[in-house]
Amino acid sequence: MNKMLTFTRSLSRRSAFLLGEASAVKKNHFRSMSTVRAPPVPPVITGTAVSKDETRDFMAVFPDVVRDLTDTGRNLDIPDVTKWLAKVLQYNVPGGKKNRGLALVLSFKMLSSPSDQTDENLRLSYILGWCVEILQAYQLVLDDIMDNAITRRGRPCWYRHNDIGLMAVNDGILLEQTIYQLIKKYFKDKPYYVHILELFYDVTMKTSMGQCLDMLTANSFKTKKLEKYTMENYTAIVKYKTAYYSFFLPVCLAMRMTNINDPEIFRQAKTILLEMGHFFQVQV
Amino acid sequence: MNKMLTFTRSLSRRSAFLLGEASAVKKNHFRSMSTVRAPPVPPVITGTAVSKDETRDFMAVFPDVVRDLTDTGRNLDIPDVTKWLAKVLQYNVPGGKKNRGLALVLSFKMLSSPSDQTDENLRLSYILGWCVEILQAYQLVLDDIMDNAITRRGRPCWYRHNDIGLMAVNDGILLEQTIYQLIKKYFKDKPYYVHILELFYDVTMKTSMGQCLDMLTANSFKTKKLEKYTMENYTAIVKYKTAYYSFFLPVCLAMRMTNINDPEIFRQAKTILLEMGHFFQVQV
Repeated sequence: MNKMLTFTRSLSRRSAFLLGEASAVKKNHFRSMSTVRAPPVPPVITGTAVSKDETRDFMAVFPDVVRDLTDTGRNLDIPDVTKWLAKVLQYNVPGGKKNRGLALVLSFKMLSSPSDQTDENLRLSYILGWCVEILQAYQLVLDDIMDNAITRRGRPCWYRHNDIGLMAVNDGILLEQTIYQLIKKYFKDKPYYVHILELFYDVTMKTSMGQCLDMLTANSFKTKKLEKYTMENYTAIVKYKTAYYSFFLPVCLAMRMTNINDPEIFRQAKTILLEMGHFFQVQV
Repeated sequence: MNKMLTFTRSLSRRSAFLLGEASAVKKNHFRSMSTVRAPPVPPVITGTAVSKDETRDFMAVFPDVVRDLTDTGRNLDIPDVTKWLAKVLQYNVPGGKKNRGLALVLSFKMLSSPSDQTDENLRLSYILGWCVEILQAYQLVLDDIMDNAITRRGRPCWYRHNDIGLMAVNDGILLEQTIYQLIKKYFKDKPYYVHILELFYDVTMKTSMGQCLDMLTANSFKTKKLEKYTMENYTAIVKYKTAYYSFFLPVCLAMRMTNINDPEIFRQAKTILLEMGHFFQVQV
């Protein structure tokens, strides 16, 4: 229990870095003239929650992920599709901040015992981190279509790239399905295989419910009615559409990888992680 | 092995009925003046592969499926979403021929021993049959958007219904996710739980690969190039886009439910079922 609390507090501080607060690095948040001794500088200030090396190690696994998913040994009869899938993955998955994937890797390192931090297990945490990034990519590809968005991560949205158009809906589905192919390939024999499958499809369900509520609320505005614009609805949209997959998912996956299975710990972690997700979203 | 062969042969005959050959019922295919004695009349002729009672029993479970998925006990804070989901399910799922769902129920009845045909197990086969129907519905909702289709099953496509528009992309995702919620609710404790999860996500992957190949081929026509219009490509599209989910999936799910787990039997069944899927598609 204490481990979990310490861990989530620590992650809470680190998450501020992870979620793009790097610009805060040079600010002095402590009263330098105070006689009160400054506390140890947390990673959010030093910007060391995830080092450049760690980010590079994570990135280094991505080409293997693409290779696994487009291996011509499988589906030999449809080479055009595997080539297309490689393009979809390369355009949409690795170009973001990778906060969610890295949060999983970081959580795994913090929760596992040193003897469990083998090269193989670290690699598994990278693979699962990429699964979270693919989930994010799949949702962004589809959200951009629904929102008629123009750019994403500084480039044209995938559906606008080379006039792909609504075929991108299917590319979103392809991306989603690759998650389960990767999980089967790497985790089928693990005792936590079913748990991580369930986490992925439960969280995907929550996210699409959040997206649904967001769109129902936006549509209600078309009739000039504002009664859906309540703080209660806003809070629910943030929780379902963002907090579950951005905070709850990566940490809970790492918990399962490290054999944390006590439902009470998951309940507590969920409360904290959804609240972190709320703070993240409302400040954007 | 023999059981499997007899079963697939029998299903092959029955499938002709299932797939809309009921009009053949009144035709006399036997030489009535022949001295050769007519063989026993197969279900394809008598139209008894699936009785009206069986179809009615299957339909009777659908309201329970909707209730399970929109149970206000879960997701209490987003009643608008559960109400919307009920509409999505009711508009898109039960209005088809239900061949695929019924093929699963029929396969279960043919493969299971009489002692395994308890009310509870039959109900489970109905639930899983509805999961196959939901998979079909989810794919149709998205395909219709991508194809800019007008009607489906004699009514406006879902995305054209009440000007829903591209929000229907998310409704497709919601539908897909309900499959896994149902499977978790009803099959979590079954020894074949993981097998049916894998069948669903493997087949969803195959289907989206088929859709991808179909669209890549169609797009190649825009440049007036016909080199993608080959029999090889056509055969691959039919196999991936239709045969896997329409024939392979329902029968393999029933095989898992009846504890058929020998990989060699699955290999043989796959060969036969994909060929049936091919014959089904090319005659449409």
